[in-house]
Amino acid sequence: MKRYEALAADIEASIRAGVLRPGDRLPSVRHTCESRGISASTVFQAYYLLEARGLVRARERSGYYVSEGARKRPPEPDLASQPQDASIAVDVSDLVFEVLEASMTRDVVAFGSAFPSPLLFPLARLGQAVAASAQALDPWSTVDDLTPGNPALRRQIARRYLADGLQVHTDEIIITNGALEALNLCLAAVTRPGDSVVVESPTFYAALQTLERMGLQAIEVPTHPREGIDLAALEHAIARHRPKACWLMTTFQNPLGSLMPEAKKQALVDLLTRHGVPLIEDDVYAELYFGDKRPLPAKAFDREGLILHCSSFSKCLAPGYRLGWAAPGRFARAVARQKLTTTLGASAPVQLALATYLERGGFDKHLRRLRHTLAAQQARFTEAVGEHFPPGTRATRPAGGYFLWVELPQGVDALRLHQQALQQGISVAPGPIFSASRGFANCLRLNYGHEWSARSEQALATLGRLARAG
Amino acid sequence: MKRYEALAADIEASIRAGVLRPGDRLPSVRHTCESRGISASTVFQAYYLLEARGLVRARERSGYYVSEGARKRPPEPDLASQPQDASIAVDVSDLVFEVLEASMTRDVVAFGSAFPSPLLFPLARLGQAVAASAQALDPWSTVDDLTPGNPALRRQIARRYLADGLQVHTDEIIITNGALEALNLCLAAVTRPGDSVVVESPTFYAALQTLERMGLQAIEVPTHPREGIDLAALEHAIARHRPKACWLMTTFQNPLGSLMPEAKKQALVDLLTRHGVPLIEDDVYAELYFGDKRPLPAKAFDREGLILHCSSFSKCLAPGYRLGWAAPGRFARAVARQKLTTTLGASAPVQLALATYLERGGFDKHLRRLRHTLAAQQARFTEAVGEHFPPGTRATRPAGGYFLWVELPQGVDALRLHQQALQQGISVAPGPIFSASRGFANCLRLNYGHEWSARSEQALATLGRLARAG
Repeated sequence: MKRYEALAADIEASIRAGVLRPGDRLPSVRHTCESRGISASTVFQAYYLLEARGLVRARERSGYYVSEGARKRPPEPDLASQPQDASIAVDVSDLVFEVLEASMTRDVVAFGSAFPSPLLFPLARLGQAVAASAQALDPWSTVDDLTPGNPALRRQIARRYLADGLQVHTDEIIITNGALEALNLCLAAVTRPGDSVVVESPTFYAALQTLERMGLQAIEVPTHPREGIDLAALEHAIARHRPKACWLMTTFQNPLGSLMPEAKKQALVDLLTRHGVPLIEDDVYAELYFGDKRPLPAKAFDREGLILHCSSFSKCLAPGYRLGWAAPGRFARAVARQKLTTTLGASAPVQLALATYLERGGFDKHLRRLRHTLAAQQARFTEAVGEHFPPGTRATRPAGGYFLWVELPQGVDALRLHQQALQQGISVAPGPIFSASRGFANCLRLNYGHEWSARSEQALATLGRLARAG
Repeated sequence: MKRYEALAADIEASIRAGVLRPGDRLPSVRHTCESRGISASTVFQAYYLLEARGLVRARERSGYYVSEGARKRPPEPDLASQPQDASIAVDVSDLVFEVLEASMTRDVVAFGSAFPSPLLFPLARLGQAVAASAQALDPWSTVDDLTPGNPALRRQIARRYLADGLQVHTDEIIITNGALEALNLCLAAVTRPGDSVVVESPTFYAALQTLERMGLQAIEVPTHPREGIDLAALEHAIARHRPKACWLMTTFQNPLGSLMPEAKKQALVDLLTRHGVPLIEDDVYAELYFGDKRPLPAKAFDREGLILHCSSFSKCLAPGYRLGWAAPGRFARAVARQKLTTTLGASAPVQLALATYLERGGFDKHLRRLRHTLAAQQARFTEAVGEHFPPGTRATRPAGGYFLWVELPQGVDALRLHQQALQQGISVAPGPIFSASRGFANCLRLNYGHEWSARSEQALATLGRLARAG
């Protein structure tokens, strides 16, 4: 445990024990530095973490105070899911579309959305980069920057891998139209119709739609809301169902927000290597961590080119630009060929624009602000869920991303709640769209990536009221 | 026949008959106006057409002269292809990639390329539109302009349909990452693995690669180098093999350059409607016509929403921007859903940029210049083929686009010629990559969409020498 984590744990314990009560002021930074013999930045890190967890709030020019809602947060779900042990055909896409299409209007309170607020992103600075690069575009790049993609952008991505301690060569990186395309191409490169693929339970509905579209079967494996997929269950599923691939989110899983610890990621890679099963690693939320560093992907432990790592700029920098990438290990050539016969390449001026933005700097500064905003919004959101939702409600406390997974009391019907909420102008993502077996009947995924406001509070109160009635 | 066509035909007859000989000056425009009682613009249209056909050349400030090469042009191929009457599994993708990857360097003479020179496009003006729109981007468009796409761009596309006499509603149009994605999504919307699909013989290799990737079988149907697919053979193939779709290029087919006359397109639509077979119409070259107006697509005759029309800006305006669209008739919703589970949307700033460019005007002016350039390059190119290639060579004379289909004498091995030519720094597209049965062993597709120069002439002389030796 790091120093700032130890300090945060001590303060949290004091709050839980009632030594510090809602409204109490935390010791000043200077005082804590002196009493603990640690630096001011360490104290600030601890206070930020507590803020992210919703336990304290900063008041301008005054210091940090224990939150009013600190003790009202709902408990976390703490049991792994229990999907059936089977390889099943997927038939959930129509339901997903029904739910999503119903929610697609601008004026709804977008708790069901998959996207954070676009206002969180440096669109003006990106626009400057687009403007500069569009007018400097080498005409031949319109041909040369087709798949695998613009070399400067691929080099920037490789440098970010390197900064995180991963050796991913520029040549391995294939630029795609967002991470969803990268995931699709990777899956197509390692499977054929009729094959089985392991997914988490619950899992991102687009993964299920992709399996359905490609005629693949799903093996849903028990997944813990904090630590991700159960490795013993995974090994059993591999032995029994012989999947051709796994599609997992090891960091800030959608919808759970679970984060596999590094040692578990290492064990996952060892397990998959032993069985020769490729892992398609959907890693689009990793930059949105609330801790002190980017969680390593499973890819960091890969020695045999078995991990097809997919990510994008859509959640952390440039929503709507539709630029992502795959680093598909030994499958790079097969993935590039998939892209060459489907969408050929990503847009040349946009590729150059993002390369230009990344070269100019400012990305990390933007990310720090974004993470802090999301962490603070999670805190507000979680407290409001605790305040308004019925007794027995549980909610995850992800260490990154912008989704909360809420388990309502047994008997609440999330699909009905979704419809009732829509009539009140509120969208939610009901649990059944996250599973091939349409489980999680009493669960919701809520998006806290939009600005917290009185309207959000009111909408959560409405949801709570509907859930109590349901 | 239009007045300018009649005039052009008369002059061509005079040249063929030897009344006008190479080097002779054509009657002046003023003289012809008076003698025929027609307008100057009609005379210019006729002279442009003759220039496009390689029969005359303009000399600055001096007038039009009968080309030196006018009588040396190779004859056109005039027989429809004779593929076997079968539905066959496709296994040609690796060969296509081998050929294409070998050709992918900037310094090769790119006769094998699928792309025209990027220098032919208004990239500077497009860059201005990109710059303006990137900085004016509504943040919420990053979500709202996902599939089906930016409303202003879709309206501009619908207006162009309308100008050509087609009623295609904005709501039917789905923006894609280039036409290739549109074609892929449309095919996925109307087929399942194992189904059969009709293609022309020869056909665009990417269509074959798509069939192979999706586990579809190909029915290759006899196709005439001037007038496109044989309708009697098509009806027979439909009755015998029960295809789930046709994938055809009715205008300036790749690789033949064939153009189905309008009456034949009408008959094609009638035939497909009778049998309930959807047509995926790949129409990416139609704007590159050398005649007086854009040839109508088969879509113009569709009354039942059975034609899935696909096109893009990649060949006529903005190469490398990767923006295309589908107008999939009654399959629009299914196609949109395919896109939502694969690439989600096209890049928002690029969509807005093209909408902005189209609103500002200048597209039609650019197109007129582009068409004239390509027509003139076809003429030079065809004459050089006639000059340098061995006796017995035939070459198509497409009325648009930038591809020539060349039939070399029997016994010439185009795949070997491709390899020998590469060693001399010249790429070609050998016939066998255009057919599931690897036919067309003695054929080449040559790209005349790059600036004509002494180097091009030299490269064609080298190809001719290799073909004579082979």
